[in-house]
Amino acid sequence: MIDPVYLDTPMYRCDALGRRLGCTVSVKLETANPVRSFKGRGTELVTGLLTRQGRTAVVCASAGNLGQALAWSGRRRGLDVTVVASVRAPAAKLDRIRALGAELELVDGDFEMARERAVRIAYERGIRLLEDSLDVETCEGAATIGLELADVGSAFDAVLIALGGGALATGVGHVLKTLVPAAEVICVQPAGAPALTRSWHERRVVTTETTDTIADGVAGRFPIPEVLGDLLEVADDAVLVRESSIIAGMRLLLENTGLVVEPSAALGVAAVLEDRDRFAGRHVVTVVCGGNVDLDAYHRWVRS
Amino acid sequence: MIDPVYLDTPMYRCDALGRRLGCTVSVKLETANPVRSFKGRGTELVTGLLTRQGRTAVVCASAGNLGQALAWSGRRRGLDVTVVASVRAPAAKLDRIRALGAELELVDGDFEMARERAVRIAYERGIRLLEDSLDVETCEGAATIGLELADVGSAFDAVLIALGGGALATGVGHVLKTLVPAAEVICVQPAGAPALTRSWHERRVVTTETTDTIADGVAGRFPIPEVLGDLLEVADDAVLVRESSIIAGMRLLLENTGLVVEPSAALGVAAVLEDRDRFAGRHVVTVVCGGNVDLDAYHRWVRS
Repeated sequence: MIDPVYLDTPMYRCDALGRRLGCTVSVKLETANPVRSFKGRGTELVTGLLTRQGRTAVVCASAGNLGQALAWSGRRRGLDVTVVASVRAPAAKLDRIRALGAELELVDGDFEMARERAVRIAYERGIRLLEDSLDVETCEGAATIGLELADVGSAFDAVLIALGGGALATGVGHVLKTLVPAAEVICVQPAGAPALTRSWHERRVVTTETTDTIADGVAGRFPIPEVLGDLLEVADDAVLVRESSIIAGMRLLLENTGLVVEPSAALGVAAVLEDRDRFAGRHVVTVVCGGNVDLDAYHRWVRS
Repeated sequence: MIDPVYLDTPMYRCDALGRRLGCTVSVKLETANPVRSFKGRGTELVTGLLTRQGRTAVVCASAGNLGQALAWSGRRRGLDVTVVASVRAPAAKLDRIRALGAELELVDGDFEMARERAVRIAYERGIRLLEDSLDVETCEGAATIGLELADVGSAFDAVLIALGGGALATGVGHVLKTLVPAAEVICVQPAGAPALTRSWHERRVVTTETTDTIADGVAGRFPIPEVLGDLLEVADDAVLVRESSIIAGMRLLLENTGLVVEPSAALGVAAVLEDRDRFAGRHVVTVVCGGNVDLDAYHRWVRS
């Protein structure tokens, strides 16, 4: 059901990056597609199912990437797509959601407020609410990345996964724990948006009052209990990284692999930078999950 | 025989870029692999055959990308690889050739002088000389891109191909003229390195005294007669573009697709920029053939 443009994405060793990090590094590249993130895998599943059910509209809250992907998949299938996002989301993400023909509603608050508003719209209009990480299609979409990693067969020791709502981590993690159980599944979140990581460590939902990170794609405050339950089953670890490490990670990816990535996609490299001993000599895969970034901000970060 | 890491590369429509160019644009992305260019397809074939023949060494002249690819493929198969390049080739390319374990010999001249020196080394050492564009494996490697384009099945009207020595154009062009004869095969070369394009138009080998272009990957002066013969059979057109258009092309690719590319990889976009009417409303595929660029130079170009 997933358009092939989102599948069988490149995975390759980056020797130069590995030398800088003291380990073998492979990237699984999820940015070389029409929406520049892995989210199309899940929205293809959701919209395919909606079409089969004869539904004509769908709404989601989004930090920016899910909204683009849902707009892309919905346009392809003639669905009315509404996306609710924060006014503070990167302009690049908001512009592309609009350009894909979705109705974009902005809330003067953070992602959690966008979630509330999306619930209300779904209720008022009687349309399907797509909830990232909670709705199984979003996890199943991400899980296809896990299938592709398992298929490669090249031995890797650990997979570093950006942790936001949790769909990517639970989807990929579930597959890996089944097919490649020896590989460590390590979730990485910014220290400035630590709710789900703290929840994982405390084995109960922990919320935060605010978030403070440039990694806009993973800045949630209210972990979803069901997602935490799944994450406790499939993640081997969840770590927090500093903003300076995220920026250093973006810079290393640019200088050593030529990839322009959004902050969330540099979390894996940031995790290696903060704990080199843990990864020394091992083969790590980092999922480069998104490349939607405002270029002005990007240049400020990587050149500073 | 080709490592899968070089095959089935992403091909996708870039709506934002298309809007800027007034046509539908798809990119065929050849930079998301260990050597960041399409050249691995051909060097995998060459080194695979050499290994079968029991050969242990190979030498090539390179503007930088072929050398990296040959070093990568040779390392994998235990071959001694020697690369001859110009001292003026981008440092990024030279550094990566060395990092891949090849012996790098620099000549104080341009690519054509590197070619002469490589011939001499092959003769003196009695080892295989790999000649880009002349040796059929380099064209066959590039031809696999054509097979993948033909496989996609999505209708495209024209394919824009960077023209340097000619392997990419003849390889891809040969397949397309066979399998997708309706698609126009358009070669693009910098006006500052026009030898093969002029030769194509005059139907005889035309050489130039010098080259003057930032597109270091395609800056030859002495077209190979056999390659010209092939090109006359498969190319529908060959056009020259200005340096300013190449830079504008790199900038558009960065701003609208998030891709950092070397100048040669922006030739297709440059061709559309210089002749918008020709491509208006049509579906063009541009092969993003390489991403090995010195970042300092890149930033100077795209930010100026």
